[in-house]
Amino acid sequence: MSELIEQFAHIIEQSSEEDITILSDYLRNFEKKQQGEFSTYLSASLNMTRTLDDQSSVVSIPNTAFIHNTMAIPHGGILAVLIDTAMGTLANSKCPEGFSAVTTNLTIHYLSVADEASISAHARMIRSGRHTMVIEGNIVQEDGKHIATATGSFFIIPKK
Amino acid sequence: MSELIEQFAHIIEQSSEEDITILSDYLRNFEKKQQGEFSTYLSASLNMTRTLDDQSSVVSIPNTAFIHNTMAIPHGGILAVLIDTAMGTLANSKCPEGFSAVTTNLTIHYLSVADEASISAHARMIRSGRHTMVIEGNIVQEDGKHIATATGSFFIIPKK
Amino acid sequence: MSELIEQFAHIIEQSSEEDITILSDYLRNFEKKQQGEFSTYLSASLNMTRTLDDQSSVVSIPNTAFIHNTMAIPHGGILAVLIDTAMGTLANSKCPEGFSAVTTNLTIHYLSVADEASISAHARMIRSGRHTMVIEGNIVQEDGKHIATATGSFFIIPKK
Amino acid sequence: MSELIEQFAHIIEQSSEEDITILSDYLRNFEKKQQGEFSTYLSASLNMTRTLDDQSSVVSIPNTAFIHNTMAIPHGGILAVLIDTAMGTLANSKCPEGFSAVTTNLTIHYLSVADEASISAHARMIRSGRHTMVIEGNIVQEDGKHIATATGSFFIIPKK
Repeated sequence: MSELIEQFAHIIEQSSEEDITILSDYLRNFEKKQQGEFSTYLSASLNMTRTLDDQSSVVSIPNTAFIHNTMAIPHGGILAVLIDTAMGTLANSKCPEGFSAVTTNLTIHYLSVADEASISAHARMIRSGRHTMVIEGNIVQEDGKHIATATGSFFIIPKK
Repeated sequence: MSELIEQFAHIIEQSSEEDITILSDYLRNFEKKQQGEFSTYLSASLNMTRTLDDQSSVVSIPNTAFIHNTMAIPHGGILAVLIDTAMGTLANSKCPEGFSAVTTNLTIHYLSVADEASISAHARMIRSGRHTMVIEGNIVQEDGKHIATATGSFFIIPKK
Repeated sequence: MSELIEQFAHIIEQSSEEDITILSDYLRNFEKKQQGEFSTYLSASLNMTRTLDDQSSVVSIPNTAFIHNTMAIPHGGILAVLIDTAMGTLANSKCPEGFSAVTTNLTIHYLSVADEASISAHARMIRSGRHTMVIEGNIVQEDGKHIATATGSFFIIPKK
Repeated sequence: MSELIEQFAHIIEQSSEEDITILSDYLRNFEKKQQGEFSTYLSASLNMTRTLDDQSSVVSIPNTAFIHNTMAIPHGGILAVLIDTAMGTLANSKCPEGFSAVTTNLTIHYLSVADEASISAHARMIRSGRHTMVIEGNIVQEDGKHIATATGSFFIIPKK
């Protein structure tokens, strides 16, 4: 273990300011996961927060360098992570006990570049059937800029 | 900085075996990013490798707990990251100098659960026009199992 | 020409009641096309009506046996015709002079079976850019039943 | 009935050469439907032919003014009819007895304008599961020009 700590100290030494920000965010959220505040490594590393009500769900992440692509804008795939998580949260909340919902397909249109400090995906149920669900997802900024619109299908399966 | 190291040491103390694996992967790849082996924090944290030839591109990541959802299977959004990166790598390789390609939309069908140690997305050009490109993406395992199939559109814009 | 009329008379002789309905609808709308009420053979044969305002467009067709598939329900492709036409009508109304809009891609989710006498697709602009547009389309019945939801991308090109 | 024939004669009188072609195609195929060569009015009016083998299905229609939009090119929705029919034919051929397959969603990318005399959509099974299928569809011309690429999901339901 002490090797890992030495390696970490070495990384810190050669870190830029941005590196330090990324590392301290990572550690803080990793620790929160250890304390049960996040359910997965991925949601911890993205610092994902969720709210859910009867009709819709919202999943938010901070817009940091961690999620940027080589053009220094949020990676389209990470927006897919966000939208799929918001949709999946809603889908699972509507499953009967003993069942869960898996994404069967997802279509995303990228409309403009997210440039606010936080990015939030909203999911809204379009149709909830016995075997499948269709859910709409949108990323819209506080300033009204529409970042992405999506539709997804979910299939309801017995939990293992 | 020494506070960060203390925090890290504290995290290590309370880490499970899986936590340690995730942390040491993260540090190793973070260090590689500092050495220029990865171009983004995201590609480092996913340990992404790429190959590109004239006709297609392949992007691979290891299938670790880092990318798993609450059902302990790879998050569909991360497969979207993988596919979008493979497509974007190919798209950008085909842009004229001074131009780059941005994803305008992406449709993914999830076919089965990835259960091999590595996950690879292959991108193949369907149509390359002056303003737009359409690219196909597939995740197929070594054992032949088809994990996901996707199509995406890209728009060619002048680089800033 | 008299041969065509003889053939038509022969078809009439062996027609079922449904055949007669289909044929008389077809003739009535063909004649209207000759009088300039429809712009294409397709819109005439589907008896398509359109309304357009600043924000949205609506295209409607009667739900007759003419558009049914072998399961005696409206063919999913015809719903695509309807949605694409509503989207395209809106897209073209928003193009600058000398330009028109072509569909680059279309995603449709089929939600339930249309069973009212008329089927209407509503198109709503999601994002209108200089080169591309993203439009949402929905088929919802008078009784509130949601038949289909769709998103489409359009590319703006100079008219020939 | 004689009124219909009079109306038809009247339409013929004021018909352009193109009108006559459209009308005689329509009648010829309507008669074939009466003789059992087409199963629906729609497939008759589009003069649709199908072939099916174990792995794929092909559906073809002639590229006539009947399917053209106001820009005098094949209506994108009609290409959707063609692709959905090819996919559905394949999907239904793979259903167990007593079951049929319905389209749950369809994504089409339009790549270029069909300008040959005939348009053919090929469907190929991507994944055939117990409850759902994913099928790929393509329209490619004899001269190699790629017109459209599509993916669709089908749900398997008991026949009524």
